[in-house]
Amino acid sequence: MGTEADAERLVREFCDVFDGRNTEALRPYFTDDVVYHNIPLDPAVGIEATMAFIEGFFGMCESMTIETLHLAVRGNVVLTERMDTFTVGQVVAPLPVMGTFEIRDGKISAWRDYFDLGQITAMLSEAT
Amino acid sequence: MGTEADAERLVREFCDVFDGRNTEALRPYFTDDVVYHNIPLDPAVGIEATMAFIEGFFGMCESMTIETLHLAVRGNVVLTERMDTFTVGQVVAPLPVMGTFEIRDGKISAWRDYFDLGQITAMLSEAT
Repeated sequence: MGTEADAERLVREFCDVFDGRNTEALRPYFTDDVVYHNIPLDPAVGIEATMAFIEGFFGMCESMTIETLHLAVRGNVVLTERMDTFTVGQVVAPLPVMGTFEIRDGKISAWRDYFDLGQITAMLSEAT
Repeated sequence: MGTEADAERLVREFCDVFDGRNTEALRPYFTDDVVYHNIPLDPAVGIEATMAFIEGFFGMCESMTIETLHLAVRGNVVLTERMDTFTVGQVVAPLPVMGTFEIRDGKISAWRDYFDLGQITAMLSEAT
């Protein structure tokens, strides 16, 4: 059992690594049975589906950075309020997001992100 | 300065009172300069704009209940993952939401809710 400080450290490190757009560098952060759910979309169930989703996502944008505005932990659950910024072509699209991370054995076993799909779709449609 | 336990108690109590659909019962929970921001929409700035928004919202649905799935506090900031369920006519629409509450002097000074506007619009359009 890790502490709440361990859970926070894991999520912050994961978000930093995410900025590197290297899918395989993210693999060690997930349990094999991870469920990655962008709430407006269908969930990716299992690590391979999660990897495939992230790989496809990285293929769509030149960069993506995560800025954590607020973070709080209770037990094995880390709640975040963030600004995720996508760059696609000439368009820089800041997307307000909240996300929940559930931690098991030092890895992320569930990740749920809440955002307005219409907002990011509208911003990125300017890029195409 | 309240404790994190005070902040949690305030937010949980507020969510319970919200279920009662009595706008004026919510007034004491907000600072005069509260900013209530449903992220996909424009923010309501100040207590009168916030009251008017909630009043309009209560006029739209027969009931609304808030189920808090996860909650964590850091300092004066309370982060929540919730299922907010709206009943409009024959339609019961469960909406996954995350929300941030900032607390000042024992009241809510900012409330930001993150959700997919398309999801709730689609669910409620069945009711009309």
